[in-house]
Amino acid sequence: MRPEHKEEMKKRARNIRLTVAYDGTNYHGFQRQKNARAVQNVLEEALEKIFGDKIELAAAGRTDTGVHAAGQVVNFFTDGKIPTKNIARAANVLLPFDIAVKDAAEADKNFSARHSAKSKIYVYRIFCGKTRDPFTERFAWQICRPLDVSEMQKAVAHVVGEHDFSSFRATGGNDKSPVRTIYRADITETAADSLTITVHGNGFLYHMVRNIVGTLADVGTKKISADDFAAVLAAHDRQKASATAPAKGLCLARVMYDEKGVNNNG
Amino acid sequence: MRPEHKEEMKKRARNIRLTVAYDGTNYHGFQRQKNARAVQNVLEEALEKIFGDKIELAAAGRTDTGVHAAGQVVNFFTDGKIPTKNIARAANVLLPFDIAVKDAAEADKNFSARHSAKSKIYVYRIFCGKTRDPFTERFAWQICRPLDVSEMQKAVAHVVGEHDFSSFRATGGNDKSPVRTIYRADITETAADSLTITVHGNGFLYHMVRNIVGTLADVGTKKISADDFAAVLAAHDRQKASATAPAKGLCLARVMYDEKGVNNNG
Repeated sequence: MRPEHKEEMKKRARNIRLTVAYDGTNYHGFQRQKNARAVQNVLEEALEKIFGDKIELAAAGRTDTGVHAAGQVVNFFTDGKIPTKNIARAANVLLPFDIAVKDAAEADKNFSARHSAKSKIYVYRIFCGKTRDPFTERFAWQICRPLDVSEMQKAVAHVVGEHDFSSFRATGGNDKSPVRTIYRADITETAADSLTITVHGNGFLYHMVRNIVGTLADVGTKKISADDFAAVLAAHDRQKASATAPAKGLCLARVMYDEKGVNNNG
Repeated sequence: MRPEHKEEMKKRARNIRLTVAYDGTNYHGFQRQKNARAVQNVLEEALEKIFGDKIELAAAGRTDTGVHAAGQVVNFFTDGKIPTKNIARAANVLLPFDIAVKDAAEADKNFSARHSAKSKIYVYRIFCGKTRDPFTERFAWQICRPLDVSEMQKAVAHVVGEHDFSSFRATGGNDKSPVRTIYRADITETAADSLTITVHGNGFLYHMVRNIVGTLADVGTKKISADDFAAVLAAHDRQKASATAPAKGLCLARVMYDEKGVNNNG
């Protein structure tokens, strides 16, 4: 958005914050596309019908094609009159089954879903069953070889703290600094055949979680050790890390804000 | 299948038993259709490529359009040579993502997935969140009004035992007797916003689980009491029960057999 256009938008009466969930399988990512169906296109079209003005969303995280969200946060300026308590219901009537507005709130004029975000939690699911599972197929990466979960847990602990994550950064991102702080990173066995990897950090480089998971998978299958994983992180070199894990296992679980009144999406 | 045709099929060398899982959302039920895509059509086509002869499946339960299965059991006769241990992998390469063969075994010539079944477990999922959830949308019935789960639990206990289930029987079934024995029926809160209803019985009338769940939902929303539910069951009259619950919440979880060697699908 051009800065002058942004200032124009801010003259509108309301700044609305939405928490949005979607199954990303059938979308070309979150960000609006000209010739493809992105979550943003579909959301904006529904909101324009409800609010009666041209809507331009900003999102906390621009999820890639096939990536899901349980707690994506977006905001937009509008002069529309619909009461806040009716927004989610009205939007969910218009939205397709794989996108839902979970919560709507009135935000301060200075609130930005993207720039006000203090931290985010991503969750990555691995399915370790030997045969395919139709119920998790869209939401998990299936790894058929046995995984050494305890070695993976040792490895993932290395990402906690402030690090230069260049080794896990894909080309194509436009972040200036490769330094991010990770507050929490763990792996839990959520079902007999399922692993859930949870990463909470103040920010994430392009493909960072998927590159971490891809390298963790090589730890799980004993291609490399947890110590090797630590060496990959310390190398600050993308060539040292493993292949990027598939998009479908990734979910933007939650976005945290610390301003009073704008973080009630938990 | 005509009886003489069935005898002809039994002359084939092998009787193969498969355990199959599917997301039923995109299928017109299990049973083969002429002008629609049913799970059976897709499974038979894949198996014919693997075994090289014309395959005719028999299934333990003929699930309706939109109903899922985690442990459907089928059998078929074949002269094909593929080793049993390779069947699941070969089939899963050919099958679409929403159908998977979980297990394959060599069965006795007299084994019939349908007629040898001693009991079945159906699971029905209810999602009680106030807004839609894209991740459970295909697999659960969403009820937005608050549910009195303890009253529902009292009600469902009445179906345990041998009963005439005429009140929960849809027209269109062709079972002679409306009497079935239910070994277990309970409701558990599987997540903050989710209920799972489990029913284990020696057999089920057409739409029986969905009609029980529809009536349980009226107990949950306090339209009727648990005692009223018992009276509905005792009336042996379909007019007394509530509307049929949606197909998408239902899943054929498991089929039990008691012959030695044919029940390793647990």
